[in-house]
Amino acid sequence: MKNTATLLISSPDRKGLVAAIADFLYKHNANILHADQHQDATEGIFLMRVEWDLADFTLSLADFPAAFDKAMADFDMNWQLVDGRKRTRMAIFVSKFDHCLVDLLYRHKQGELQCDIPLIISNHEDTREIADFYGIPYHVVSVTAENKVEAEAEQFRLLAEYNINLIVLARYMQVLSSEFCKQYPQQIINIHHSFLPAFHGARPYHRAFERGVKLIGATGHYVTEILDDGPIIEQNVTRISHRDSIDDLLQKGRDLERVVLSSAVRWHIDHRVLVYKNKTVVFD
Amino acid sequence: MKNTATLLISSPDRKGLVAAIADFLYKHNANILHADQHQDATEGIFLMRVEWDLADFTLSLADFPAAFDKAMADFDMNWQLVDGRKRTRMAIFVSKFDHCLVDLLYRHKQGELQCDIPLIISNHEDTREIADFYGIPYHVVSVTAENKVEAEAEQFRLLAEYNINLIVLARYMQVLSSEFCKQYPQQIINIHHSFLPAFHGARPYHRAFERGVKLIGATGHYVTEILDDGPIIEQNVTRISHRDSIDDLLQKGRDLERVVLSSAVRWHIDHRVLVYKNKTVVFD
Amino acid sequence: MKNTATLLISSPDRKGLVAAIADFLYKHNANILHADQHQDATEGIFLMRVEWDLADFTLSLADFPAAFDKAMADFDMNWQLVDGRKRTRMAIFVSKFDHCLVDLLYRHKQGELQCDIPLIISNHEDTREIADFYGIPYHVVSVTAENKVEAEAEQFRLLAEYNINLIVLARYMQVLSSEFCKQYPQQIINIHHSFLPAFHGARPYHRAFERGVKLIGATGHYVTEILDDGPIIEQNVTRISHRDSIDDLLQKGRDLERVVLSSAVRWHIDHRVLVYKNKTVVFD
Amino acid sequence: MKNTATLLISSPDRKGLVAAIADFLYKHNANILHADQHQDATEGIFLMRVEWDLADFTLSLADFPAAFDKAMADFDMNWQLVDGRKRTRMAIFVSKFDHCLVDLLYRHKQGELQCDIPLIISNHEDTREIADFYGIPYHVVSVTAENKVEAEAEQFRLLAEYNINLIVLARYMQVLSSEFCKQYPQQIINIHHSFLPAFHGARPYHRAFERGVKLIGATGHYVTEILDDGPIIEQNVTRISHRDSIDDLLQKGRDLERVVLSSAVRWHIDHRVLVYKNKTVVFD
Repeated sequence: MKNTATLLISSPDRKGLVAAIADFLYKHNANILHADQHQDATEGIFLMRVEWDLADFTLSLADFPAAFDKAMADFDMNWQLVDGRKRTRMAIFVSKFDHCLVDLLYRHKQGELQCDIPLIISNHEDTREIADFYGIPYHVVSVTAENKVEAEAEQFRLLAEYNINLIVLARYMQVLSSEFCKQYPQQIINIHHSFLPAFHGARPYHRAFERGVKLIGATGHYVTEILDDGPIIEQNVTRISHRDSIDDLLQKGRDLERVVLSSAVRWHIDHRVLVYKNKTVVFD
Repeated sequence: MKNTATLLISSPDRKGLVAAIADFLYKHNANILHADQHQDATEGIFLMRVEWDLADFTLSLADFPAAFDKAMADFDMNWQLVDGRKRTRMAIFVSKFDHCLVDLLYRHKQGELQCDIPLIISNHEDTREIADFYGIPYHVVSVTAENKVEAEAEQFRLLAEYNINLIVLARYMQVLSSEFCKQYPQQIINIHHSFLPAFHGARPYHRAFERGVKLIGATGHYVTEILDDGPIIEQNVTRISHRDSIDDLLQKGRDLERVVLSSAVRWHIDHRVLVYKNKTVVFD
Repeated sequence: MKNTATLLISSPDRKGLVAAIADFLYKHNANILHADQHQDATEGIFLMRVEWDLADFTLSLADFPAAFDKAMADFDMNWQLVDGRKRTRMAIFVSKFDHCLVDLLYRHKQGELQCDIPLIISNHEDTREIADFYGIPYHVVSVTAENKVEAEAEQFRLLAEYNINLIVLARYMQVLSSEFCKQYPQQIINIHHSFLPAFHGARPYHRAFERGVKLIGATGHYVTEILDDGPIIEQNVTRISHRDSIDDLLQKGRDLERVVLSSAVRWHIDHRVLVYKNKTVVFD
Repeated sequence: MKNTATLLISSPDRKGLVAAIADFLYKHNANILHADQHQDATEGIFLMRVEWDLADFTLSLADFPAAFDKAMADFDMNWQLVDGRKRTRMAIFVSKFDHCLVDLLYRHKQGELQCDIPLIISNHEDTREIADFYGIPYHVVSVTAENKVEAEAEQFRLLAEYNINLIVLARYMQVLSSEFCKQYPQQIINIHHSFLPAFHGARPYHRAFERGVKLIGATGHYVTEILDDGPIIEQNVTRISHRDSIDDLLQKGRDLERVVLSSAVRWHIDHRVLVYKNKTVVFD
C-alpha cells in the first residue's frame, strides 16, 4: 500500500497545460515523486502521469475532483485520479496450462505485483493445488458451448462478490463474450502466444512452426470485443531455429509468456498504461 | 576464393547414411573442415552440409557426380555439389532507398560477402553515385505498369550477360512477375520491412505504427510467386515505444533491414541455407 | 527416461574420424537421432555429440567401451558414453533467495528438466515450504566461518547418500572450498548475477548500478576453484535505464537468472555441453 | 536546423520546481514540444529536459539567462540552454578501421545526425577516399610515442580552426592525453568494443574469445582521463557461439559498434544526454 496519489491525464495539447497542473499540485503542497508526459504531435494529444506523496498534501482526495475540475476549466481534459492506498483487486482466469498462473502468484508473493489477488476462476480443477499453496480462493466454473451465458453470469457474480477491477487471462482457453468484454473495458489483460498481429487466433505456435519463422513471440494486450485486436501493452520475442520442435517452441514460449504477461500486469497495476486510439502509452 | 567443396544433401532419413557419406569422403582423402546435419524426425528427413579442403582430395570435381551417385545408390538422395573456387555472381536490384545497397557494397569490399557483384539494376538514377564509388556497372531499367514485360526482358538479358546466379532485392520497390520468380528459384532474396507474416504487403511500418506494436521487424526471404510468402532465411526485431514517430520507425528499420538482409545474403553465398517444405535450415 | 545412448567425443582432429565413428555405429545397427560436431581449426580439436536409439542397437552398453576403444585405436580420442536410461541425479543448494529454486522445481515438474531431484540443501530454513510442496527432501546444513569443514563433510555425506552427480547452486550464498570444487569437476553449476567477467564477486547488481551500465546480465557456469572463473555455459542480458532503481535491477535480474540457470542446467542434463580450454561447446 | 530551444536542468529536488519552470515558459508563450524529467530519490536530484518552439516565444535567447536565473533564484539549479538553430560541429577521429566512419557519414547524409561534420582527423591516409566521397576535409596527423605532444597541439589547432564542439573517436586507435580529455569534458565520445567494464583496455574481442563468453558487446561512452571509465551512454550485445572464430567476432562486432556509436552520437547531438555521478540519463 503506497501513500501516494497518481493522476492520469489525456487532453488536447494546449499551451499552459503543464503550468496549470504543476501550479495546482504545488499550491496543495504535493511532493511529486514521478512525472512523465508525452505529446503526440500528429494527433495533437497531451498525455501525462504524475504521482505524488500524500503525506504533506493539503487537499483531501474526496475534494480533489471538484477542485481540479474547476482549476482545469479552460482545458478539455480527461483525467483519472488513483488513490495508491487502495490496491487493485485482480482475478486470474486459467484453464489447464498453469505456467502463467504459477508465475503471477510467485511474483505476487515476492512483492513484484502490488495488488490483491482474492480470486482464481478456472474451467477445470487442475490448478487448484497451486491456488491452495498460495491460499487463494479457487472457483471452478465449467464452460461449454451450451452453458456459456450461465457460466459468464456465475463469473460476473464472483467478480462482483470479490470486488474485482482487473481480470487477467492467464492462458484461459475460452473466448469471452462481447458483453463480458464491454463490461470490463481496459480491465481485462490477455496473453496471446504470438507476436500479434501475426498468428492471431488458435494454435499460433503450430502455425509459426509451419511458416518457418525465425522468432516466436508473445503479446500482452487489453481484451476488446474483437479477438486479439485490443491495445497492445507489451510484446517480446525469442529466437528459434530448425533444431526446435513444436515442443521446444512451447517451452520457449512459456518463458516468453510469463515475462510478457507479468510486465503488462505490473504496469497496469502501477497505473502506468494509458490507452488512446487502440494503442497504449506505457510510462516508465 | 576458397579451395574447398561443399556438399548439400537432402534425403529420406535412413540408417547408414552418414557412414556412407563419411566413407566416400574419407576414401578420397577429404580433409573435412565443417560438417553439420539435421534430422527432422516428424518428416523423416535428413539434411547435411559438409565442406572439405580440396588440397588433398583425390577425386576431381568433374568425376564427383558419377562416383557419388554410384556410392549412394541405396539412398533416395538429393544432393548438390558446390565448387568453392567459383564465386556466386550477385546482382543487386534497388530503387531509391539506398541503405541496403550501401551496406551490401561496403560489406563486400570489407570481405564479409565472398561473392562477385558485377551488376546493379535500378529503376531510377538515384543510386548511381554509390555504384560508381565502388566501381560496379549500374543499369537503369525503368519499370511502369505498361512496359513491365519489356523491362523484365531487359533485366533477363542483363542477368544472362553478367552470368548472375543470385539476385538481391535491396528495397526494390517493384513486384517481380511470376515468370521472373520461377526462372530463379531460391536465387532471389528479398528484404521485407516487417516481421512476416505480420504486415505483409505495402507500407508495413505505417501499419505497425497504427496497430501499436511494441517491436518492429524485418525479414530476409527467398522470393516465390506468392508475395512475401517465400521461405524465411532470417528475421529480427527492435523495440519501439510511444515516443517513436513514423520517422523513428523508418530509421530503426533501416538498421534492422541492413543486418537481416546482409546475414541472409551471406548465408546463401556460403551455401549454408537448405530449403524444404517452404522453410529454411540455416547451418551455422 | 529415454531409451537412447549419447556419445561425447573430444579428439585431435584427424582424417577418417567421422567415418570410423559412423561405421562403428552403423555396424551395430544404431538408429542415429541427433549428431552434431565441431572442429576448432585453431586448436586442431574435433568435438562430437551423437545420440542414437537403443531399440535396435546390437551392442550392449556394457560391451561398448572395449569394442569402441578397439575400433578407435588409431585415434587419440577422449570419449564418454551416457546411458539415457539413467537420469542425472541433481541436488539444489540454496540460501534465502528462492526464485531460482522455485523455477527449477516448477520446470522439473513440467518435464523441462529430465532428471531426478532427490535433494535440496540449504543453510537456512526459509525455503523448506516450497520443497515440501514438491515433495523433495530438504536438509539444512548451517555454514559459518568456524564450521565450514564440518558443514562440507555433512554435505558430502548427503550427496553420497542420495547418489548425486550434479549440484546446482541456485543463488547459494556460500563459497565452496577448493576441495569441494575439485571433488565435482564439471558437476557444479552456479548462477552468477552479472555478465561475467564484469562484476565478478560480491554485490554485482549494486556495482552495475554504480557504474551506470545500460544492460545487466547473468551467467551460468561450471564452478572451479577460482571464483566466478569456470567455463561459461550460458549468459544473457536485459536492458535497464536511469529509471531503474536497485530494486528494479534485482527484479529484472531474477527473470534473467531463472532463464539463464535453467538453460545451463537443461543443456548439462541433456549432455549437450562439452568443456575444453576453460570454454564450453553447447551442441544444439 | 530546428527553430527550437532546449533547456537541460540538474538541480536538488525541491517542491515547486516544475511549477516554476512551467510558469516561466508559459509566461513567455513557449509552445512545449517535448518534456521529460527524472527524479533520483536516492540522491535527491531532479533532472529535466524541455524543448519548445521558438516561433511564438516572446523572450529572446539573449535575454533568457538573466530572466531565467532571476525566476529560479529560490532553487540551487544548474541549467544549460541549447539554441536548436546552431548545429553541433563534430569532428571524427579515425585510424584504419573504417566501418564506424563510413556508418556515421552515411547516417549524416541520410539526415539521421542533425549536425555539421566539417573535419576528419586520422593518423593514417587509409580512409581519405571515403572522406572525399562525402566531401569532408581530411587531415592526417601522425602520432608516435615521441611526437604525441606536438600531434595533439596540431589536433587542437584544427579543432579550433573548424570550431568543433564534439569529437567522436570512431575506432581511433590512440589514447588521448589527460590534457586533451580535460579540454573537452563530455564532448568526446568513444566506442569501446566490449561490454564495459568487462574487457576494458586492448584487444577486447580476443580476450572475450579466450574467456569463452556467450555474448560480445560494445559501449559508447564519454571519454574521461581514466581509460574506458567515462559515463556510459549506450551499450548493446550480440550472441556468439563456439562456431564463431575471432574473425566472426570482429564481423559481428562491427555491426554492434556502428549501431551503438551512432545512437550515442545522435542522442548527444539531440541534447538528450545528462551526466551526473559518472552516469548518464538519456531522455527519450
